[in-house]
Amino acid sequence: MELYEKTLEQVSKYEGRVIHVHVDTVELPNGRTSTREIVNHPGGVGILALDENNNVLVVRQYRYAFGRTLIEIPAGKLEKGEDPYQAAMRELKEETGATCEKLQSLGEIFPTPGYCDEIIRLYLARNLSWGEMHLDEDEFLTVSRMPFQELVDKILSGEIRDAKTCAAILKAKLLLGL
Amino acid sequence: MELYEKTLEQVSKYEGRVIHVHVDTVELPNGRTSTREIVNHPGGVGILALDENNNVLVVRQYRYAFGRTLIEIPAGKLEKGEDPYQAAMRELKEETGATCEKLQSLGEIFPTPGYCDEIIRLYLARNLSWGEMHLDEDEFLTVSRMPFQELVDKILSGEIRDAKTCAAILKAKLLLGL
Repeated sequence: MELYEKTLEQVSKYEGRVIHVHVDTVELPNGRTSTREIVNHPGGVGILALDENNNVLVVRQYRYAFGRTLIEIPAGKLEKGEDPYQAAMRELKEETGATCEKLQSLGEIFPTPGYCDEIIRLYLARNLSWGEMHLDEDEFLTVSRMPFQELVDKILSGEIRDAKTCAAILKAKLLLGL
Repeated sequence: MELYEKTLEQVSKYEGRVIHVHVDTVELPNGRTSTREIVNHPGGVGILALDENNNVLVVRQYRYAFGRTLIEIPAGKLEKGEDPYQAAMRELKEETGATCEKLQSLGEIFPTPGYCDEIIRLYLARNLSWGEMHLDEDEFLTVSRMPFQELVDKILSGEIRDAKTCAAILKAKLLLGL
Protein backbone atom coordinates (compact mmCIF):
# COMPACT_ATOMS: atom_id res chain seq x y z
CA MET A 1 0.00 0.00 0.00
CA GLU A 2 1.27 3.46 -0.96
CA LEU A 3 0.97 5.57 2.21
CA TYR A 4 1.85 8.99 0.74
CA GLU A 5 -0.40 11.95 1.56
CA LYS A 6 -0.45 14.75 -1.03
CA THR A 7 -0.79 18.37 0.06
CA LEU A 8 -3.82 20.04 -1.55
CA GLU A 9 -3.89 23.27 0.46
CA GLN A 10 -2.01 24.88 3.33
CA VAL A 11 -3.48 27.51 5.65
CA SER A 12 -1.24 29.28 8.17
CA LYS A 13 -2.89 29.54 11.61
CA TYR A 14 -0.19 30.97 13.87
CA GLU A 15 3.26 32.44 13.30
CA GLY A 16 5.01 32.58 16.65
CA ARG A 17 8.46 33.39 17.98
CA VAL A 18 9.44 29.70 17.97
CA ILE A 19 6.64 27.67 16.44
CA HIS A 20 4.46 28.01 13.36
CA VAL A 21 1.13 26.23 13.04
CA HIS A 22 -0.61 25.41 9.78
CA VAL A 23 -3.51 23.21 8.77
CA ASP A 24 -3.12 21.32 5.53
CA THR A 25 -5.75 19.64 3.43
CA VAL A 26 -4.31 16.37 2.15
CA GLU A 27 -5.29 13.67 -0.26
CA LEU A 28 -5.25 10.31 1.53
CA PRO A 29 -4.07 7.01 0.01
CA ASN A 30 -7.69 6.10 -0.75
CA GLY A 31 -8.28 9.35 -2.69
CA ARG A 32 -10.39 11.00 0.00
CA THR A 33 -9.31 14.21 1.73
CA SER A 34 -8.56 14.98 5.35
CA THR A 35 -6.79 17.72 7.31
CA ARG A 36 -3.47 17.65 9.15
CA GLU A 37 -2.67 20.09 11.96
CA ILE A 38 1.09 20.66 11.87
CA VAL A 39 3.50 22.50 14.15
CA ASN A 40 6.81 23.62 12.60
CA HIS A 41 9.68 23.84 15.06
CA PRO A 42 13.32 24.80 14.32
CA GLY A 43 14.66 21.66 16.02
CA GLY A 44 16.82 21.26 19.06
CA VAL A 45 19.83 19.63 20.63
CA GLY A 46 20.45 17.76 23.89
CA ILE A 47 23.88 17.11 25.38
CA LEU A 48 24.86 14.23 27.66
CA ALA A 49 27.95 15.71 29.35
CA LEU A 50 29.97 13.22 31.38
CA ASP A 51 32.76 14.21 33.75
CA GLU A 52 35.81 12.07 34.52
CA ASN A 53 33.92 10.23 37.28
CA ASN A 54 30.91 9.37 35.08
CA ASN A 55 28.75 12.06 36.61
CA VAL A 56 26.28 13.69 34.23
CA LEU A 57 25.63 17.44 34.15
CA VAL A 58 21.90 17.89 34.74
CA VAL A 59 19.84 21.06 34.78
CA ARG A 60 16.78 21.73 36.88
CA GLN A 61 14.50 24.11 35.05
CA TYR A 62 10.95 25.36 35.55
CA ARG A 63 8.86 24.05 32.67
CA TYR A 64 5.92 26.38 32.34
CA ALA A 65 3.86 23.91 30.27
CA PHE A 66 3.93 21.49 33.22
CA GLY A 67 3.96 24.06 36.03
CA ARG A 68 6.92 22.41 37.69
CA THR A 69 10.67 21.96 37.70
CA LEU A 70 12.10 19.07 35.69
CA ILE A 71 15.49 17.38 35.64
CA GLU A 72 16.91 17.27 32.10
CA ILE A 73 20.18 17.16 30.25
CA PRO A 74 21.33 20.55 28.91
CA ALA A 75 19.43 21.38 25.74
CA GLY A 76 18.15 24.13 23.52
CA LYS A 77 16.66 25.21 20.24
CA LEU A 78 18.56 25.78 17.04
CA GLU A 79 18.99 29.42 16.12
CA LYS A 80 18.09 30.41 12.57
CA GLY A 81 20.41 28.61 10.16
CA GLU A 82 22.52 27.21 12.98
CA ASP A 83 24.35 23.91 12.58
CA PRO A 84 23.16 21.39 15.22
CA TYR A 85 26.72 20.48 16.27
CA GLN A 86 27.57 24.14 16.88
CA ALA A 87 24.25 24.62 18.69
CA ALA A 88 25.12 21.75 21.03
CA MET A 89 28.54 23.27 21.79
CA ARG A 90 26.84 26.65 22.42
CA GLU A 91 24.06 25.32 24.65
CA LEU A 92 26.44 23.22 26.72
CA LYS A 93 28.58 26.29 27.39
CA GLU A 94 25.65 28.64 28.00
CA GLU A 95 23.73 26.36 30.34
CA THR A 96 26.56 24.70 32.28
CA GLY A 97 29.77 26.63 31.61
CA ALA A 98 31.37 23.43 30.32
CA THR A 99 33.17 23.12 27.01
CA CYS A 100 34.77 20.20 25.23
CA GLU A 101 36.93 19.70 22.17
CA LYS A 102 34.55 17.48 20.30
CA LEU A 103 31.10 15.95 20.63
CA GLN A 104 30.11 12.40 19.72
CA SER A 105 26.70 11.89 18.11
CA LEU A 106 24.09 9.86 20.00
CA GLY A 107 21.69 10.05 17.08
CA GLU A 108 18.45 11.99 16.97
CA ILE A 109 14.84 11.63 18.06
CA PHE A 110 11.51 12.73 16.64
CA PRO A 111 9.62 13.71 19.84
CA THR A 112 6.12 13.99 18.34
CA PRO A 113 6.05 12.95 14.66
CA GLY A 114 2.23 12.85 14.63
CA TYR A 115 1.93 16.63 14.48
CA CYS A 116 5.33 18.32 14.75
CA ASP A 117 8.46 18.27 12.56
CA GLU A 118 10.87 18.85 15.46
CA ILE A 119 14.10 16.83 15.45
CA ILE A 120 16.28 16.73 18.57
CA ARG A 121 19.92 15.83 17.93
CA LEU A 122 21.69 14.15 20.84
CA TYR A 123 25.39 14.43 21.62
CA LEU A 124 27.87 13.01 24.12
CA ALA A 125 30.42 15.42 25.61
CA ARG A 126 33.49 14.14 27.49
CA ASN A 127 36.84 15.60 28.59
CA LEU A 128 35.09 18.72 29.85
CA SER A 129 36.72 22.04 30.65
CA TRP A 130 35.04 24.59 32.89
CA GLY A 131 34.12 28.21 32.34
CA GLU A 132 31.26 30.60 33.02
CA MET A 133 27.57 30.02 32.31
CA HIS A 134 25.81 32.52 30.01
CA LEU A 135 22.06 31.98 30.25
CA ASP A 136 19.53 33.71 28.02
CA GLU A 137 17.91 36.62 29.84
CA ASP A 138 14.61 34.77 30.29
CA GLU A 139 16.27 31.47 31.24
CA PHE A 140 16.69 30.32 34.85
CA LEU A 141 18.14 26.98 35.80
CA THR A 142 20.45 25.27 38.25
CA VAL A 143 23.18 22.83 37.22
CA SER A 144 24.40 19.88 39.22
CA ARG A 145 26.17 16.57 38.71
CA MET A 146 24.42 13.24 39.05
CA PRO A 147 26.04 9.79 38.79
CA PHE A 148 25.23 8.19 35.43
CA GLN A 149 23.68 5.11 37.00
CA GLU A 150 21.47 7.25 39.27
CA LEU A 151 20.05 8.88 36.15
CA VAL A 152 19.41 5.46 34.58
CA ASP A 153 17.62 4.38 37.78
CA LYS A 154 15.50 7.56 37.89
CA ILE A 155 14.46 7.00 34.26
CA LEU A 156 13.56 3.36 34.85
CA SER A 157 11.63 4.25 38.04
CA GLY A 158 9.71 6.97 36.18
CA GLU A 159 11.07 9.91 38.18
CA ILE A 160 12.75 11.41 35.10
CA ARG A 161 10.42 11.63 32.10
CA ASP A 162 11.87 14.16 29.68
CA ALA A 163 12.09 12.28 26.36
CA LYS A 164 15.48 13.58 25.16
CA THR A 165 17.01 12.80 28.56
CA CYS A 166 15.54 9.26 28.50
CA ALA A 167 16.79 8.64 24.96
CA ALA A 168 20.31 10.03 25.48
CA ILE A 169 20.91 8.25 28.78
CA LEU A 170 19.46 4.86 27.78
CA LYS A 171 21.18 4.89 24.37
CA ALA A 172 24.49 5.73 26.07
CA LYS A 173 23.91 2.98 28.64
CA LEU A 174 23.52 0.36 25.91
CA LEU A 175 26.00 1.78 23.38
CA LEU A 176 28.85 2.57 25.75
CA GLY A 177 28.21 -0.03 28.43
CA LEU A 178 28.36 2.66 31.13
CA MET B 1 16.68 29.82 43.78
CA GLU B 2 12.87 29.80 43.37
CA LEU B 3 12.24 28.94 39.70
CA TYR B 4 8.46 29.49 39.58
CA GLU B 5 7.01 31.57 36.73
CA LYS B 6 3.72 33.32 37.48
CA THR B 7 1.09 33.74 34.76
CA LEU B 8 0.20 37.40 34.21
CA GLU B 9 -1.85 37.09 31.04
CA GLN B 10 -2.92 34.38 28.60
CA VAL B 11 -3.84 35.01 24.97
CA SER B 12 -5.32 32.20 22.87
CA LYS B 13 -3.75 32.03 19.40
CA TYR B 14 -5.19 28.90 17.83
CA GLU B 15 -7.91 26.44 18.80
CA GLY B 16 -7.54 23.38 16.64
CA ARG B 17 -9.00 19.92 16.37
CA VAL B 18 -6.17 18.42 18.46
CA ILE B 19 -3.92 21.20 19.70
CA HIS B 20 -4.50 24.60 21.26
CA VAL B 21 -1.85 27.31 21.19
CA HIS B 22 -1.64 30.22 23.62
CA VAL B 23 0.96 32.81 24.47
CA ASP B 24 1.32 33.67 28.13
CA THR B 25 3.02 36.65 29.69
CA VAL B 26 4.85 35.42 32.78
CA GLU B 27 6.71 36.94 35.70
CA LEU B 28 10.21 35.47 35.85
CA PRO B 29 12.10 34.59 39.05
CA ASN B 30 13.95 37.93 38.83
CA GLY B 31 10.69 39.92 38.67
CA ARG B 32 10.97 40.74 34.96
CA THR B 33 8.41 39.57 32.43
CA SER B 34 8.71 37.33 29.39
CA THR B 35 6.40 35.37 27.13
CA ARG B 36 5.87 31.62 26.82
CA GLU B 37 4.46 30.03 23.67
CA ILE B 38 2.56 26.94 24.78
CA VAL B 39 0.87 24.09 22.90
CA ASN B 40 -1.83 22.16 24.77
CA HIS B 41 -2.24 18.56 23.67
CA PRO B 42 -4.66 15.94 25.09
CA GLY B 43 -1.86 13.42 25.68
CA GLY B 44 -1.24 10.05 24.15
CA VAL B 45 -0.38 6.42 24.69
CA GLY B 46 2.13 4.01 23.16
CA ILE B 47 1.96 0.24 23.44
CA LEU B 48 4.87 -2.19 23.30
CA ALA B 49 3.04 -5.39 22.31
CA LEU B 50 5.16 -8.54 22.55
CA ASP B 51 4.10 -11.88 21.13
CA GLU B 52 5.09 -15.27 22.58
CA ASN B 53 8.35 -15.26 20.57
CA ASN B 54 9.43 -11.78 21.71
CA ASN B 55 8.42 -10.17 18.44
CA VAL B 56 7.11 -6.62 18.73
CA LEU B 57 4.07 -5.37 16.81
CA VAL B 58 5.25 -2.34 14.82
CA VAL B 59 3.30 -0.02 12.58
CA ARG B 60 4.56 1.74 9.48
CA GLN B 61 2.71 5.00 9.05
CA TYR B 62 3.11 8.05 6.82
CA ARG B 63 3.99 10.98 9.05
CA TYR B 64 2.96 14.06 7.18
CA ALA B 65 5.11 16.39 9.33
CA PHE B 66 8.20 14.52 8.10
CA GLY B 67 6.96 13.61 4.62
CA ARG B 68 7.86 9.98 5.07
CA THR B 69 6.88 6.66 6.59
CA LEU B 70 8.16 5.88 10.08
CA ILE B 71 8.37 2.68 12.11
CA GLU B 72 6.71 3.11 15.51
CA ILE B 73 4.97 1.14 18.21
CA PRO B 74 1.14 1.37 18.07
CA ALA B 75 0.02 4.65 19.60
CA GLY B 76 -2.66 7.29 19.65
CA LYS B 77 -4.18 10.32 21.27
CA LEU B 78 -6.48 10.30 24.26
CA GLU B 79 -10.09 11.00 23.42
CA LYS B 80 -11.86 13.63 25.50
CA GLY B 81 -11.99 12.48 29.13
CA GLU B 82 -10.57 9.07 28.25
CA ASP B 83 -8.53 7.09 30.77
CA PRO B 84 -5.00 6.42 29.40
CA TYR B 85 -5.16 2.70 30.22
CA GLN B 86 -8.41 2.32 28.29
CA ALA B 87 -6.98 4.40 25.45
CA ALA B 88 -4.00 2.04 25.22
CA MET B 89 -6.31 -1.00 25.06
CA ARG B 90 -8.38 0.76 22.38
CA GLU B 91 -5.44 1.87 20.23
CA LEU B 92 -3.79 -1.54 20.37
CA LYS B 93 -7.00 -3.15 19.14
CA GLU B 94 -7.74 -0.49 16.50
CA GLU B 95 -4.24 -0.36 15.01
CA THR B 96 -3.18 -4.01 15.20
CA GLY B 97 -6.26 -6.11 15.95
CA ALA B 98 -4.52 -7.46 19.07
CA THR B 99 -6.08 -7.49 22.53
CA CYS B 100 -4.73 -8.54 25.91
CA GLU B 101 -6.19 -9.05 29.38
CA LYS B 102 -4.06 -6.49 31.12
CA LEU B 103 -1.34 -3.96 30.37
CA GLN B 104 1.76 -3.28 32.43
CA SER B 105 2.91 0.33 32.79
CA LEU B 106 6.28 1.33 31.32
CA GLY B 107 5.97 4.83 32.75
CA GLU B 108 5.44 8.00 30.80
CA ILE B 109 7.48 10.54 28.83
CA PHE B 110 7.24 14.28 28.29
CA PRO B 111 8.20 14.57 24.60
CA THR B 112 8.71 18.35 24.45
CA PRO B 113 8.36 19.98 27.90
CA GLY B 114 9.83 23.27 26.66
CA TYR B 115 6.63 24.26 24.86
CA CYS B 116 4.01 21.50 25.03
CA ASP B 117 2.15 19.82 27.90
CA GLU B 118 1.77 16.46 26.13
CA ILE B 119 2.34 13.33 28.21
CA ILE B 120 2.71 9.95 26.49
CA ARG B 121 1.93 6.97 28.72
CA LEU B 122 3.75 3.77 27.76
CA TYR B 123 2.43 0.24 28.29
CA LEU B 124 3.60 -3.32 27.79
CA ALA B 125 1.10 -5.81 26.35
CA ARG B 126 1.72 -9.57 26.50
CA ASN B 127 -0.36 -12.72 26.08
CA LEU B 128 -1.97 -11.26 22.99
CA SER B 129 -5.17 -12.47 21.33
CA TRP B 130 -5.97 -11.64 17.73
CA GLY B 131 -8.95 -9.95 16.13
CA GLU B 132 -9.75 -7.39 13.46
CA MET B 133 -8.15 -3.96 13.03
CA HIS B 134 -10.45 -0.91 13.09
CA LEU B 135 -8.53 2.12 11.84
CA ASP B 136 -9.86 5.65 11.95
CA GLU B 137 -11.15 6.68 8.53
CA ASP B 138 -8.19 9.01 7.90
CA GLU B 139 -5.62 6.55 9.26
CA PHE B 140 -3.52 4.28 7.03
CA LEU B 141 -0.84 1.98 8.36
CA THR B 142 0.63 -1.46 7.98
CA VAL B 143 1.38 -3.75 10.90
CA SER B 144 4.18 -6.28 11.12
CA ARG B 145 6.21 -8.16 13.70
CA MET B 146 9.85 -7.38 14.40
CA PRO B 147 12.14 -9.26 16.81
CA PHE B 148 12.65 -7.24 20.02
CA GLN B 149 16.44 -7.20 19.65
CA GLU B 150 16.18 -5.99 16.04
CA LEU B 151 14.21 -2.98 17.30
CA VAL B 152 16.85 -2.29 19.97
CA ASP B 153 19.55 -2.47 17.27
CA LYS B 154 17.61 -0.13 14.94
CA ILE B 155 17.22 2.40 17.77
CA LEU B 156 20.90 2.25 18.70
CA SER B 157 21.95 2.56 15.03
CA GLY B 158 19.67 5.58 14.58
CA GLU B 159 17.33 3.99 12.05
CA ILE B 160 14.33 4.26 14.42
CA ARG B 161 13.95 7.72 15.91
CA ASP B 162 10.39 8.06 17.20
CA ALA B 163 10.79 9.11 20.84
CA LYS B 164 8.02 6.98 22.39
CA THR B 165 9.31 3.91 20.52
CA CYS B 166 12.88 4.57 21.74
CA ALA B 167 11.72 5.09 25.34
CA ALA B 168 9.42 2.05 25.48
CA ILE B 169 11.89 -0.35 23.86
CA LEU B 170 14.99 0.77 25.76
CA LYS B 171 13.16 0.89 29.11
CA ALA B 172 11.80 -2.61 28.49
CA LYS B 173 15.27 -3.80 27.50
CA LEU B 174 16.74 -2.64 30.82
CA LEU B 175 13.73 -3.32 33.08
CA LEU B 176 12.81 -6.77 31.76
CA GLY B 177 16.22 -7.95 30.61
CA LEU B 178 14.80 -8.90 27.20
